[in-house]
Amino acid sequence: MITEFDTSLPSIRQVQNLIKEGAAIQIKLLTGDLLTGKMIWQDVQCLCCVDDHNQHVTVWKQAIAYIKPM
Amino acid sequence: MITEFDTSLPSIRQVQNLIKEGAAIQIKLLTGDLLTGKMIWQDVQCLCCVDDHNQHVTVWKQAIAYIKPM
Amino acid sequence: MITEFDTSLPSIRQVQNLIKEGAAIQIKLLTGDLLTGKMIWQDVQCLCCVDDHNQHVTVWKQAIAYIKPM
Amino acid sequence: MITEFDTSLPSIRQVQNLIKEGAAIQIKLLTGDLLTGKMIWQDVQCLCCVDDHNQHVTVWKQAIAYIKPM
Amino acid sequence: MITEFDTSLPSIRQVQNLIKEGAAIQIKLLTGDLLTGKMIWQDVQCLCCVDDHNQHVTVWKQAIAYIKPM
Amino acid sequence: MITEFDTSLPSIRQVQNLIKEGAAIQIKLLTGDLLTGKMIWQDVQCLCCVDDHNQHVTVWKQAIAYIKPM
Repeated sequence: MITEFDTSLPSIRQVQNLIKEGAAIQIKLLTGDLLTGKMIWQDVQCLCCVDDHNQHVTVWKQAIAYIKPM
Repeated sequence: MITEFDTSLPSIRQVQNLIKEGAAIQIKLLTGDLLTGKMIWQDVQCLCCVDDHNQHVTVWKQAIAYIKPM
Repeated sequence: MITEFDTSLPSIRQVQNLIKEGAAIQIKLLTGDLLTGKMIWQDVQCLCCVDDHNQHVTVWKQAIAYIKPM
Repeated sequence: MITEFDTSLPSIRQVQNLIKEGAAIQIKLLTGDLLTGKMIWQDVQCLCCVDDHNQHVTVWKQAIAYIKPM
Repeated sequence: MITEFDTSLPSIRQVQNLIKEGAAIQIKLLTGDLLTGKMIWQDVQCLCCVDDHNQHVTVWKQAIAYIKPM
Repeated sequence: MITEFDTSLPSIRQVQNLIKEGAAIQIKLLTGDLLTGKMIWQDVQCLCCVDDHNQHVTVWKQAIAYIKPM
């Protein structure tokens, strides 16, 4: 899988901004799980969210339904 | 993932029109969630919908089942 | 995503025929939803179905399990 | 999506044989649906199964969990 | 879809070994199904498992969650 | 599927570190399963986790929702 992280995409930039701002967000997964916390990094495959228990949760982007601010 | 946003596709154009018109829409997700609101932008990976609580919800297109007008 | 709409595929041609015939069809989605209506266009990513309430439903092909005539 | 239908694959050949033999099969879908019938054609995206009610069901291969003989 | 079966991958080699050994395995599918049996071949798209009823089940790799020995 | 294992990705490196450290982790799958154990290897398609019963579970990355430390 040739991986190119296209920072010109609004969706990629929006996640970058949420990371910079340290915004509290909700991530709804295709499993039905609703993760809450702050994103600390993203790449083409995953993003990392520090949850309310200060745990680093590596989320596979393939499993994301939507992200929205708390 | 080489990303090319093909605006010649009817489906891409249709979402662009719904954005321009500010149409109220329903988005059914593979999680079973039914989001309602107005779309404000899209890219190859996601679209952003302002929901009835004026929150910006970034929806991953991989999770979309269908979109239809309210 | 380089998009090539391969009209030599039997599955693409079959949907084109169902569109031309205005055939009434059922679309079963991975969400479990069963949409009924008539397809009016398709592209590599989506197809559009006018449902029994005359609403235009844009269905993402990624969410389709099967299509069959009514 | 560049589409190449690789008939050297055992899985493609196996479906071709089941079609030639007119074998009765079960197709389990990711929706949990269990379709039964006889396959009549396949391409890279779909396969077509004539079900027990003699209806042509176009199944998207993306939705298939497994296929097995009756 | 350009198909290259990369036998240098540990996961491909592991399945090859399980096939050679005729090991009894469990395959958990995204449908929640738990298939048990012995794998007899794999390709880039599928693997074939002979189940406890001696039936050849062609499993689409897209539907696999995990494989583990009995 | 041309397979390139991009070790520059933070997500790939993070799994590599968890493997080196022998960290106990939880893997949430799209089936809803929650696997616990220690990862011993990964490739572009799968990762292998030794579970609490000392069984080697080969997990398809396509089925992963998230990974987090115990």
